[in-house]
Amino acid sequence: MIVLHHCFDARSFRPLWTLEEMGLPYRLRLLPFPPREAVPDYLAVNPLGTIPLLEDGAVRMNESAAICHYLVSRYGPSPLNVAPEEPDYAAFLNGLHFGEATLTFPQTLLLRYRRLEPPERRLPQVAEDYERWFLSRLRKGLARLDGGFYAAGRFTAADISIGYALLLATRLGLAGQFTPDVADYWARLSSRPGYLRAQGAQQAAQAAQAAPPADAPG
Amino acid sequence: MIVLHHCFDARSFRPLWTLEEMGLPYRLRLLPFPPREAVPDYLAVNPLGTIPLLEDGAVRMNESAAICHYLVSRYGPSPLNVAPEEPDYAAFLNGLHFGEATLTFPQTLLLRYRRLEPPERRLPQVAEDYERWFLSRLRKGLARLDGGFYAAGRFTAADISIGYALLLATRLGLAGQFTPDVADYWARLSSRPGYLRAQGAQQAAQAAQAAPPADAPG
Repeated sequence: MIVLHHCFDARSFRPLWTLEEMGLPYRLRLLPFPPREAVPDYLAVNPLGTIPLLEDGAVRMNESAAICHYLVSRYGPSPLNVAPEEPDYAAFLNGLHFGEATLTFPQTLLLRYRRLEPPERRLPQVAEDYERWFLSRLRKGLARLDGGFYAAGRFTAADISIGYALLLATRLGLAGQFTPDVADYWARLSSRPGYLRAQGAQQAAQAAQAAPPADAPG
Repeated sequence: MIVLHHCFDARSFRPLWTLEEMGLPYRLRLLPFPPREAVPDYLAVNPLGTIPLLEDGAVRMNESAAICHYLVSRYGPSPLNVAPEEPDYAAFLNGLHFGEATLTFPQTLLLRYRRLEPPERRLPQVAEDYERWFLSRLRKGLARLDGGFYAAGRFTAADISIGYALLLATRLGLAGQFTPDVADYWARLSSRPGYLRAQGAQQAAQAAQAAPPADAPG
């Protein structure tokens, strides 16, 4: 059984979305953020202390876009994968990395220095530098959406990698700065049944943790 | 003919190293850094303005770790690739992403806010935050080097992805903080004939640009 260690709306949403798109069985372990501080025993299963962690038999992975690629190729054949023989294999690989390395990391700087750090350590300059950086790369990197998707004219794991960056951007209040093309792309991705099931799965896990056990008194 | 747009010791060193390890023919276009400011026509070939850009027929890629994966799978079979059927495929994918998203981006913050920004925009706090972040992820993420390499008990493109992060760390003066295991790993990677050929190729390209044309007067 695949086990996904997850924080609400964190990068681990990528593998969660992939699992739901593919209809694979899995167990979701929802953790408070950041888990390395809130759940001390988490370091025993993931010494990096980061989210996600995927367990699949002896396999352990912690890079979210790599996990998506692993799932669609290991548990395929799936239209979410692009095989090395397909003409758009290069674009597929590029999009998997682009979504994380180029579009997600810069946003974590906004999150950190605009919201998470204590007030005396906040740095508006860094948040502004990387907001501009992100929006520029987003606009230029998605200038040509082939058939509405990043690669191969269909929805693939590359769109999940990039789609998570767009989800994070909406949470950070940046969606108003999406170009019309990017806003349309995001609307298309975030209305997919697989996306909605993944959102439902994390909401159900959160509700289950908040509710008292069924046999609790009163 | 493969064309690699490259800046000296930039992320594009990853595909350069891969090309030299595989013995593939290519043309190297060495550009001043940052190319989007120094070479205005670069934006016509790469609207993102970033390095690397790989051209291979109709293929255009700009994510360095993705290019390495593309080259070893498209131009294989190569021992630098790990096929989906191999037990360490998951670790291989993880390492490709880990080298860039987790180990390289944080170092660009040191570079920017400690060295590249004008003095009044430098931010020691950010440089220190991400120096600590990088060294922690490096130590924990490379705690178990299987047979001396990241995956599959042999040198693969995952080691090139991570190896570039170690090259950048040495350029930023962080090598003195490598653990003995990481220092050994880096010594092993950076003494490979393929690594040394890649260093030689960029040095030759730089020397050719610095020298006057052979038919120049006096």
